[in-house]
Parts: sequence; C-alpha cells; structure tokens
Amino acid sequence: MVRQARAEATRQQILIGAAKAFEQKGFEGSTLGTIVEIAGTTKGALYFHFKSKEELAQAIIGEQHVISIASVDAIAATGGSALEQMVMLSYEFGHQMVHDPIVRAGIRLTLELSAVAGPAEPYLGWISAYERLSERASAEGDLLDTIEPKTLARFGIGAFTGVQLVSNVLTGREDLQQRLDEMWLLLLPGIMPSDRHLKIPAIRRARWSAAAS
Amino acid sequence: MVRQARAEATRQQILIGAAKAFEQKGFEGSTLGTIVEIAGTTKGALYFHFKSKEELAQAIIGEQHVISIASVDAIAATGGSALEQMVMLSYEFGHQMVHDPIVRAGIRLTLELSAVAGPAEPYLGWISAYERLSERASAEGDLLDTIEPKTLARFGIGAFTGVQLVSNVLTGREDLQQRLDEMWLLLLPGIMPSDRHLKIPAIRRARWSAAAS
Repeated sequence: MVRQARAEATRQQILIGAAKAFEQKGFEGSTLGTIVEIAGTTKGALYFHFKSKEELAQAIIGEQHVISIASVDAIAATGGSALEQMVMLSYEFGHQMVHDPIVRAGIRLTLELSAVAGPAEPYLGWISAYERLSERASAEGDLLDTIEPKTLARFGIGAFTGVQLVSNVLTGREDLQQRLDEMWLLLLPGIMPSDRHLKIPAIRRARWSAAAS
Repeated sequence: MVRQARAEATRQQILIGAAKAFEQKGFEGSTLGTIVEIAGTTKGALYFHFKSKEELAQAIIGEQHVISIASVDAIAATGGSALEQMVMLSYEFGHQMVHDPIVRAGIRLTLELSAVAGPAEPYLGWISAYERLSERASAEGDLLDTIEPKTLARFGIGAFTGVQLVSNVLTGREDLQQRLDEMWLLLLPGIMPSDRHLKIPAIRRARWSAAAS
C-alpha cells in the first residue's frame, strides 16, 4: 500500500513537471530530459509510468477532462438554474485556466493540436455538457422557443474558446473574467424570452468555486 | 523591369510553398528544405528573398493582413449597413480560411503562437475594424444604447476566432458557414433594438465575394 501511494505520488509529480514544460515550451519544444529535470525525478521513474512524450500529453489532456467533469458535477449539485450553471462553468473553467498547471498545459496541448486537425474529444465533451444544460434551460422556460439547445451549446463553447484565446494573446488571460462577463451580457438578452430579462443581472453574477465548497 | 517581375514571381512562389508547408506541418515541423521542395525553387533563391524561417512566417502573416484589409475596404465600398458589413466580413474571412493557402497558413501560424503569448497584431487589427463598424452601427441606430461598440468588437472577434477553431477541429471547417449563421442568429437579437429586429433576416443573409465583384 505504501509502495502504491509512493508510486502514485511520483506519477503526479511527473505529470505536474510535464504540465509545466508543455505549458512553457509546447509539445514540440519539450524534451523528456527537461520534463525529468522540472519534475525532480529520473528518466527511469518517468518510463515506469509513461511510455513516451505522447502518452504524457494524453495523460495531461485526460486529467484535464477529469477536472472538467468534476466541476460540471459539483456545479450541477448547486441546484442553480441551467443558465446560471452555464455561467458558473465558464468562470470556473476560466479560473482553472489561470490557476491550474494541468489545465493550462491541457489547453495549450489542445490548442496546438487544434491548429491542425486536432483532438475533437475535449470540444465534444464540453459541447455535450452545455447541450444538456441548454435543454434544461429550455425546459425551465429560460430559452426562446426559436433557439435549438444544440445550437446554443455549440456556439457557447466556440465563443468561450475564442474569448479565452484572445484574452490569453492580448493580456495573458488577466482580463478573462471581464471578457466572460461581456460575453454573457451580449448573449443572454438574445436567447432569453423578454419576460425573463429581469433575471439577467443575477444570472451574470452566478459563480461557483471549488475553494469555497 | 523584367528581372524585377521575375524576382517578384519567385518571391510569391516561395511564399506559397512556405504557406503550404506551414499549413500542413506547422512552424516547428517545416524545414527550409521542405519549403524549397514544395515551392520548386532553390535554397539560394529562398535566401535571396528571406533571411530565415521566422522571416518567411512573418511575411505570410503580413500578406494575410494585406488580404484582410483589402476585404474590409472592398466591403466598405458596398454601402451596406455596418451590421451587414460585419456579417459580410465574417463570411468573407471564413471563405478565405477555406480557400486561400496564405490565409490558412497565416491562421495556423497565428494559432500556434496564440497557444503561448503570441502575436497580438492580427487580433488587434480585426478588433479595430469591427470597432469602427460597431460605432457606425450605433450611429445608424442598429445597436442598443447599452452596448459599447468596443465590447461588441472584442466579443465578435473572440467568438469568430473560437467558432472557426472548433469548426476546424470537428469538421475541417466544412460546417463553418452554418456555424457563422448560428453565431449571428444568437448574437443579433441581443444587440439590436427590438424595433430593428425585422431587419435581422436580411442582415444574416448579407454576403460579399471577391469573385463576384
């Protein structure tokens, strides 16, 4: 048991070292040598857990997915309206991008690969999470009849992806919170029935934080 | 004069060869050897025009900027309303991304660099083009008083960037036209005064094409 816990600790240490390397130098620019150095471990230990740099990158994208799913579930448990949950998710994901090295590396790896064909899974996962919430928003009467939940989900994830990317390029994501608030300011009035517009300020303020829960 | 024209033709040939290489293999993955091979020229000819791979990448991003500015000007000359021009620009840029190798390479280079700090210029240029149009839309009474032109410009470019990125990852940009239509479908009702909503279908249909002009 002790040996197993130690192995798991080493695996995490390697993952975080790799995340830091990928985040700073990208996939092409990171060598196993650099990763081992940043992680403060040996190539032997690295090879015990991961066969290659590709496997490390996949493991980081996988961990990021686990972190994402955990926020979706935790935010679902708040009992907020579906639109509030969509707002909370966008801020929580924005927060993770700024503060969690695994998420930052996962985003950089996903974006680097997105410049070409790239991995569809992270986007499909987020679109389906938003689609379920959009369907609930529709059932809750918060969505105009003319708007397909799938359409809102796909555009919401596309818009979020671009907003965080442009915020990263222009300010290193320092203005991300403000840019997300502008996204909801522009988007909510066009998707909600006018008799629900009074709820917009409260929906825009909806937040959830892992630290606070 | 003949020599100058021939030099210019070689320069274009090299740029297009480099664009094809960068588009397929990215900046890191492209060597000067591959570029020369695709361009059907020699390293001597390449070095006559460009000092390095970096300079080639910068030249492609620069050409893409020239192509962008030309569309902004041509679309301004149509005399369409500012919102119509914003719609036209998004489709024209989407069209270029699918059909113009220089634009495709420029986008890949910009995205690869955007995964890190990245070059701010292309985004700032597009945001300021959209900001001028948003100000005109406001003067034309097509924009709600509560919406700052700068906010709409920044979100419009962020959303477009993400929509094309996700479309590229999921369908190789085959569904880009449909995804752009959904973007305007969701966005226009929330930014226009309700007494202008009847104009929305016409604005969504606004198109401009270099081929047709």
